[in-house]
Amino acid sequence: MKAGAAIELGRGESNSKGMTSTAARAGVNRGASILDFILRIVAFLGTLVSAIAMGTTRERLPFFTQFLQFRAEYDDLPTFTFFVVANSIVCAYLVFSLALSVFHIIRSNAKKSRIILIFFDTAMLALLTAGASAAAAIVYLAHKGNAKANWFAICQQFNSFCERISGSLIGSFVGVVVFILLILLSAAALSRR
Amino acid sequence: MKAGAAIELGRGESNSKGMTSTAARAGVNRGASILDFILRIVAFLGTLVSAIAMGTTRERLPFFTQFLQFRAEYDDLPTFTFFVVANSIVCAYLVFSLALSVFHIIRSNAKKSRIILIFFDTAMLALLTAGASAAAAIVYLAHKGNAKANWFAICQQFNSFCERISGSLIGSFVGVVVFILLILLSAAALSRR
Repeated sequence: MKAGAAIELGRGESNSKGMTSTAARAGVNRGASILDFILRIVAFLGTLVSAIAMGTTRERLPFFTQFLQFRAEYDDLPTFTFFVVANSIVCAYLVFSLALSVFHIIRSNAKKSRIILIFFDTAMLALLTAGASAAAAIVYLAHKGNAKANWFAICQQFNSFCERISGSLIGSFVGVVVFILLILLSAAALSRR
Repeated sequence: MKAGAAIELGRGESNSKGMTSTAARAGVNRGASILDFILRIVAFLGTLVSAIAMGTTRERLPFFTQFLQFRAEYDDLPTFTFFVVANSIVCAYLVFSLALSVFHIIRSNAKKSRIILIFFDTAMLALLTAGASAAAAIVYLAHKGNAKANWFAICQQFNSFCERISGSLIGSFVGVVVFILLILLSAAALSRR
């Protein structure tokens, strides 16, 4: 509380006498917090689009036999279900973390909330990376198949299905990169307090 | 440099007059740095064992036809090659990071080196998680197969191969958990400076 008051004082002075060192730091931290806020919105959109794109993927082939109808849906493969769940969780977390991000713009010398944010950001980074790379491994298999294990490249039949699931990975990987930047930003802000 | 000198002074005083607040913080940070060092060794061993266990996996079935010999090696599946490479990179990084960790035990108020460490730790966390979860997705497929995509459960034939690759995931996931703790520790140490 005392440190907060000192910075308020510092900023008050800076209007009349010019920036003090403490106020300058607070200003840099405020800028970093605004960048943090923007990056969170980017990651939110990325994961949201990924979850929706994957979750609405289905393809029905135009031919069918008497007993079989050929169709592919994302939840035929459990990994893709995990991908959708992971992206949805991260997406929901990002909405809540926006509130903390706004709090950091207003109070740029907050400390404990930043540590909490770093911890959850790291956990969410791990979750998002796990979902995205597991899905990428299966997408690769769907495209290339594997001769040794006798797994066929299903993309030869389900073309638009494969394009859709490949595309939906992009948003997730954008989210991963953004999370790494967010953690770096938070660490830098903590060190500048 | 000035701050460092002040803390040295603070520690000097603490020997004669009792712990000052700064010295107490430095002590907590030193403890955290030692924990950091131990956790890095744990993660190093985990990733090393994972890489070796996966990299030496091969199975030759006792029967063969005239043209085919049934054998499975880890590099039949590109995902497992990625797993070994990712674990090796993280393992090598951890050895180098031990040096920085020792530096933090000696100079517990270091700032820039901690931020650098957080950044690389985060990147390595992402790499390790990607490798581990991609491999886990394929291992799951090898165990269960997928009826919709016509992918067979190869574990029915390659039993010991499958046990080996499943087991080698453990070290990697231990590494992931340790990295999350390491980032949290570093963030807490940064905030206590």
